This record gives sequence, structure tokens and C-alpha cells, in this order.
Amino acid sequence: MSLNYDHIFSQAIDRLHEEGRYRVFIDILRNKGAYPNARCFAHHNGPKPITVWCSNDYLGMGQHPKVVAAMEEALHDVGAGSGGTRNIGGNTHYHVDLEHELADLHAKEGALLFTSGYVSNEATLSTLAKILPGCVIFSDELNHASMIAGIRNSGCEKRVWRHNDLAHLEEMLAATDPDAPKLIAFESVYSMDGDVAPIAAICDLADQYNALTYCDEVHAVGMYGARGGGITERDDVADRVTIIEGTLGKAFGVMGGYIAADKTVVDVIRSYAPGFIFTTSLSPVLVAGVLASVRHLKSSCEERAAQQRHARLLKDHLLEAGLPVLESQTHIVPLLVGDPVKAKRIADILLAEYGIYVQPINYPTVPRGTERLRFTPGPDHNEDMIRGLTDALTEIWGRLELEMIKAA
Amino acid sequence: MSLNYDHIFSQAIDRLHEEGRYRVFIDILRNKGAYPNARCFAHHNGPKPITVWCSNDYLGMGQHPKVVAAMEEALHDVGAGSGGTRNIGGNTHYHVDLEHELADLHAKEGALLFTSGYVSNEATLSTLAKILPGCVIFSDELNHASMIAGIRNSGCEKRVWRHNDLAHLEEMLAATDPDAPKLIAFESVYSMDGDVAPIAAICDLADQYNALTYCDEVHAVGMYGARGGGITERDDVADRVTIIEGTLGKAFGVMGGYIAADKTVVDVIRSYAPGFIFTTSLSPVLVAGVLASVRHLKSSCEERAAQQRHARLLKDHLLEAGLPVLESQTHIVPLLVGDPVKAKRIADILLAEYGIYVQPINYPTVPRGTERLRFTPGPDHNEDMIRGLTDALTEIWGRLELEMIKAA
Repeated sequence: MSLNYDHIFSQAIDRLHEEGRYRVFIDILRNKGAYPNARCFAHHNGPKPITVWCSNDYLGMGQHPKVVAAMEEALHDVGAGSGGTRNIGGNTHYHVDLEHELADLHAKEGALLFTSGYVSNEATLSTLAKILPGCVIFSDELNHASMIAGIRNSGCEKRVWRHNDLAHLEEMLAATDPDAPKLIAFESVYSMDGDVAPIAAICDLADQYNALTYCDEVHAVGMYGARGGGITERDDVADRVTIIEGTLGKAFGVMGGYIAADKTVVDVIRSYAPGFIFTTSLSPVLVAGVLASVRHLKSSCEERAAQQRHARLLKDHLLEAGLPVLESQTHIVPLLVGDPVKAKRIADILLAEYGIYVQPINYPTVPRGTERLRFTPGPDHNEDMIRGLTDALTEIWGRLELEMIKAA
Repeated sequence: MSLNYDHIFSQAIDRLHEEGRYRVFIDILRNKGAYPNARCFAHHNGPKPITVWCSNDYLGMGQHPKVVAAMEEALHDVGAGSGGTRNIGGNTHYHVDLEHELADLHAKEGALLFTSGYVSNEATLSTLAKILPGCVIFSDELNHASMIAGIRNSGCEKRVWRHNDLAHLEEMLAATDPDAPKLIAFESVYSMDGDVAPIAAICDLADQYNALTYCDEVHAVGMYGARGGGITERDDVADRVTIIEGTLGKAFGVMGGYIAADKTVVDVIRSYAPGFIFTTSLSPVLVAGVLASVRHLKSSCEERAAQQRHARLLKDHLLEAGLPVLESQTHIVPLLVGDPVKAKRIADILLAEYGIYVQPINYPTVPRGTERLRFTPGPDHNEDMIRGLTDALTEIWGRLELEMIKAA
């Protein structure tokens, strides 16, 4: 036979090596109770102590005593897994309670849990658009891979508007058949640049052109708004967005995803989305942990405030040191490198010499030429750590003769 | 505006009610340590004791002391969630260990974890086929929804062969361009009928026509083979199958999915599959539980043997009572009803009057007209429970004047 599968697969891997974006996973264990301290197992004899600077457990809720206690209690009460899909044996009382809690968080009639944020985006977008014959989806060009997958898998017509560009969105809406169903899909906080969508203005356009709106709040839930309801809560526009999507694996510290919307929309996705129907439901142990996390962050602003303070502090230190930090509007601190090989080299030195763990972010997560390090300081990163990180970066920037910016 | 979204969504829900297949989730909590005993919350004042007969926690590993202890230890060591994708902060030592354990289970070079079995099928099939230009996928007609989604999302040409029909598969292979990449996708145990694929013969055809093979073993891992490696282990054909896919949420009792294959194939999926790359990794608490479960079932055959014994016993009782049980080759015990409304009615009576929980299985999980009750007896269902279930079904069959079969 002439066809050699191994050869094709090897070539696909070789391409990644050539572009300097072959991914090596850093092997770690976080130290519960002492996070961001962790242990690293790669390339060492035994674990080496490190500080984690790239976790999306933004508020350290993964080690919160209430979350851990709730998970332990559920583990001993009901066991490890749900044992089935939501319809066949896997609908626990925890799932029902959490969906009520999330609906309340976003002031919506209902909510629906998925096994991940990725699946919630893919399943909801692909299913919603299929239910609406001839639907046209208007997608922000920086939307997450999971939204892109959902839109593509819907088979609908897709129109991509320039990032956060309202004029471009309106131009596209105006050029579309007024009778066609329309769905505008966007994120509230874009995780790699840390900028924020003009949600109210997008909703104005949606009203004007009779479009549904879908807002991915995965980097904002738990983080913004008085009760952690995200940017839609902070900007008081939750009731204007048709579907709010969130994750349970970032600020809430556990795992899973969800949507919140009115009852009928939730029921349609619940009843028609293959990615919801045909999968074992979230472990009740996780769901119990999320319940505790969401409830805590509804009443406590302490973690959110400390996180914002430390993000501001880190940005100030980096700017003062002349390092090319992107001035984001949010808690995310991106440091531009612009080259995948250099980004990886900096991260390697930080880990090996300084015990600082930050992952280089390369294509396809960010566009080529915008490769970066992305820091996520949390409430548990103290001022000493922030100073240590800045000093380490300054030394490495000098050693590798990388470009500085003028000090602020 | 003439377009009314609410109306379209409501109509979609109305269609389900009209067909009698609107799904109502039964709200339960399992009693760890006493499973299949559980509590049911729906339509009652306070929880009511029930026996679960439809869980896919086939071996009761979700309450196994080793699994629970491992999860508790991980929870206290590293906390609730992984905090990131596998590439960005979410690659724990547990993940690395479990992938080695699963590779060993299937005698493969590598393994890769996903957040669910659904995602492992969707992500692997869609990505694999995209890497192989012009790939043609040969899909058994009864393949699971997640495989169908992966195949559709690959954008490849798909040819559907009649269920387990080798002659039809060969006919299709012979009619396809010999130089085109080919992938044969099938399951080992089909979960709704309980029949088994002729894997060795499929591999013979794959050799003859130079095709790759993809075998979904989600209803077989942990259950068949001396170490729980599935039907591919039992039939000694694991080395002939290109990719073996499994779940961590059924016999292993927790949550998650995986593939096992040679190193290059695993690396390609790891490096290119959006559904793997762009999602928060499994909680280390779950991974620790699965590690304990897989290790236990590699050396213990006790649970598998008891499960098979009880499945045989239930089938014998049902046949003796003249109930229309489908004589499956495996541990699955389907009882044919053939009508969605009647199937739901029987299940409602079982739950309300007998405290027996079994979910009616309707379209699209099974073809219309083959609606059924599907029982999954496990090692913890005792003979009294089996007799009680048979008596209850006999009474209901008489009450509703349903068709009996001639006693065996």
C-alpha cells in the first residue's frame, strides 16, 4: 500500500516543532492551603517547589475551606460519580440546586449545567442555531475556539465582525435579511488581552435588528458584579442578554460550564443538544463544591477586591520596570513577547532558575506575532511574590536582550 | 418585527410533548456505601427511598472505599480543580500517572484524557480525519451520538455500514479509492442492545484495505478482559485496533474519557484537537479516584464476575416470567416496550409504587418503535432485589395489558 498513516501523523507533529510551538505540559501539583505554591515534577528528581502565575483559578476558590468541605461531604454522602446522563440516573439533587443558584446569580428563569465551558458553548450555539431555520450568526473575531466550534457545527451562515467594533457589527446586521433569525455571539472579558465588550451597545443593536444575544462570561463570572454575576451584572445588562454562558472551572475553582436564560431557551437546549443529552453528568462531588463556591462569592467581595488590587500592583511594577505589559482593563496581565521560541525560552528560565511557573501562550490560542506570557495574580499572590516576579523578568529581559518600553 | 423567537422555541418543546418524549429528570441522591439504594426528591415531600436500576456505574466503583479514599486524599492535597487547560497550569501529576495507567491497560504506547467520553469521541474523530486529507470514514449505523458528531464535524465523507454487517462493510471498503485514507469507526459493546462487534474480523478487513480502526469501548472497559481492558483485551485484539476509546464515568465509576493509541497518534490529537486543547482539564480529585479504580479493577475480577452473575440471573427471571427481555450477549438487560408513552408509564408506576428507579429509553437514544426499559444490575443488586423487580414488572405488565412472550 502506498498510503503511510504514520508518516502523515509524524509530519503533522514535525510542523509544530519547526514553528517552535510544540507543547510540553508542565507536570505540577498545587499545594492546597498554600496556593499559589505548588510542586513541579518535570525534569527533576522529585518535586521542586514553584509559584504558579498562570492559573485560571483566579480567586483561589479551589482551596477555599467551604469548597473543600462541601466536596468532602458530598463524596461521603453520594460517592464519586453521578453514574449516568442527566436523563438516565445522573440527575442529582446537587445538580438541581446548582442550576437554581446559577439562574438566580444571573437573574434568569433557568440555568443548565454542562461538563465544561467548552461543551456549553459548542452545544448551545450549535443547537440553538439549528432550531432557528436560516439563522445567521454574528461572531466577534476574537471569540473562543469553543464558540467557533459551536457556530461551525451549527451549519449556519456566519458573519465575523471586527473585535468589539460596533459599527462593523451594525453594518453586517443592516445588510442581512430582516426576517432571518439572528444571533450575536461575543465574550464579556477577552481572556488574552483582558479587554471588555460594550455589552449595552451590542444589546441596543440586537433590539434594533431583532437579534438574540449570546455572551460568554467565563473570565468574568465570580469576578465582576456585586454578587459575582459577571460584567453583565456590573453593567446592569443581564436582563438584556438572551443567553449568558459561564464556567465553573475558573473563578469558581472547580470544573464544568453552564448557560443561564429564560425557561424556554433552557428547555430547548436541555431537550435537543447532543452534547448535553448524551454525556455522563458532572460528578456530584464537583457540583457540591461549585454550590459552596458560588454561594460564597455571592456574598463575599473580599476575594474579588484583593485580586483586582494585586493585578493593578503587578501591572504597575511591570510598567515601572519598562517591561512590555499590555494595559488591560481587567484582572489579566499579558506581557508581550511576539515570538513563540522566545516566549518559551523566557518561561523555561523562569521555571528552572526562579521556580516561577507561567506558560507561554502561542498560536492558535493567540494570533501569530502576538505570543505572550499571561500572568493571573490572585488574592493569594503577595507583594513579595509580585516584586520577585518583576525582578526575575527584568533580569531575563536583559539577559536575552529583549525590547523594553519607556518607563511610565 | 414579524419573527417571534419564543414561538419557535415553544413549538420545539411542544413537539416533544406531542410525541410523548419530553424528558423529566428524576432528582436523586445515591446512598454511598449502600448503593443501589438511593433517595428520590421528585414529587414528594422530602426524600423517598428507592433502588436504582439504570445506573452506568456498572460495578458500583463510585462507592468503592479505595476510590473514595483516593479522592479525599487528593482533595486535601491539591484542592478542588486543576485551574487550567492541560497546557496552561492544568497538567497535574495525577493526569500524567493516569495516562500511563490507561496506556498500560490497553497495551498501547500512550493515552490521552478528555473531560468526557463524549468529548473524546467528538474531538478525536473530528481531528484525526482532518489530519488525513480526503479521509473516508466507515461508521457502524448504531454508533453513539458522540461518534456521529465527531464524524460530521470532521467534514469528511462518511459511509454508514449496517450494524455489525461485515459483508456490507467490505462492500463499501472495496468500492472506495484504494489510495484514500480510511477509518473504520465502531463500538465494542452496543449499550442499548448489549451486542458485541466482531472486532477481529473488522481488523482483518482494515488490514486488507489499509484502514485505520477506532473502537469505542465505553460500555466494556473495566467490565471485560482479565484486567478490565474491554472486549479488545478479552478477544486479544487490542494491538490490532488503532485507537481504543473509553470512559471513566461508567464501570470506573467517576467521570471523564480517554483514548489509547500509539505515541504519534496520541501526540497528534493532543496537539491539534480543539476539544482537548481549549478546555479546563479534569479535576485532579476525579483523576485520583479513577487511578484507584483502574488499578483495582486491573487485579480484581470479583466485581466483574458478580455483575455478570446478576445480569444472567435477572435475564433468567424476566424470561421465566414471560417478559419481553432482549437476550443480549452482555451485561445489559433491555426490556422491550415499543412505545414512548407506555415506557414512561411503566417507569412512573415502578418509581411511585415500588420505589424502583429505571429510566424509559426513548428516541433519539434508540430508534422509534424500540422504546424500552434498560436495566443495569450490578454486583450490589442482590437476589431479593432481582425477584422484587421481576414481580413488580409482572404485575404492571398485567395491569396495563402489555404483551408477554412465551415463557422459556
